[in-house]
Amino acid sequence: MITKVNHIGIAVKDLDAAVKTLKDVFGLEAAGTQEVESQKVKVAFVPLGDTRIELLQPTSEDSAVAKFLVSRGEGMHHIALETDDVAGDLKKAEEGGARLIDKEPRPGAHGTMVGFVHPKSTFGVLLELVEETGKHSS
Amino acid sequence: MITKVNHIGIAVKDLDAAVKTLKDVFGLEAAGTQEVESQKVKVAFVPLGDTRIELLQPTSEDSAVAKFLVSRGEGMHHIALETDDVAGDLKKAEEGGARLIDKEPRPGAHGTMVGFVHPKSTFGVLLELVEETGKHSS
Repeated sequence: MITKVNHIGIAVKDLDAAVKTLKDVFGLEAAGTQEVESQKVKVAFVPLGDTRIELLQPTSEDSAVAKFLVSRGEGMHHIALETDDVAGDLKKAEEGGARLIDKEPRPGAHGTMVGFVHPKSTFGVLLELVEETGKHSS
Repeated sequence: MITKVNHIGIAVKDLDAAVKTLKDVFGLEAAGTQEVESQKVKVAFVPLGDTRIELLQPTSEDSAVAKFLVSRGEGMHHIALETDDVAGDLKKAEEGGARLIDKEPRPGAHGTMVGFVHPKSTFGVLLELVEETGKHSS
């Protein structure tokens, strides 16, 4: 079952500049940063209520986020929905008519299991399902 | 002070179809719909944790959301940050280097006061500040 928004992902060219902007303009503080090698991105986490903003800067030109920046420019990239059963909810999404990017869950950042649904299925919005497994491998 | 994400705004062409998709694909239920005449949009609200998704369908070709759909297509449109002082936080945003769309707060949906910050200031993301005033005029 989907319980909340886990995070809102934003593609940026310069992570340090974006972190500084959120601080200067809105007084929002990044809680930390992480490099996610599987996605070829550096991420800064900005907690907000029960969710958070994740700023994403590509670390390689062949990162999906790098390609997004070339085609669309900086801006909102995806919404991650938190679930207690990512495998079951991916299956339900497909049964409900969605085209899946990930048929099976795969490891995400800091011990999560994740799966993406194709934006063609969901009015242009790239949606990620995320399950917190409680295992923090990094 | 900014306390949470008030909502995530998504521009769609067909509100009923988008509501049905969120239900069929993710089991998410819309809590209600509203027409916001000042913005020339119909809105469906989908609660998620302490925030909500707002699906926005334009009701007129000269709506800002209609223009967004023509230039960018369906997808994520803005993030609204909740504050207890929208006037003060707009002033702080400008002092912090942001370009404001609204220099002063103006009435938003269901009794809120709102102000928008220009996406050129904030890595391509249209950010709205929202203050819940407790007055529900509709």
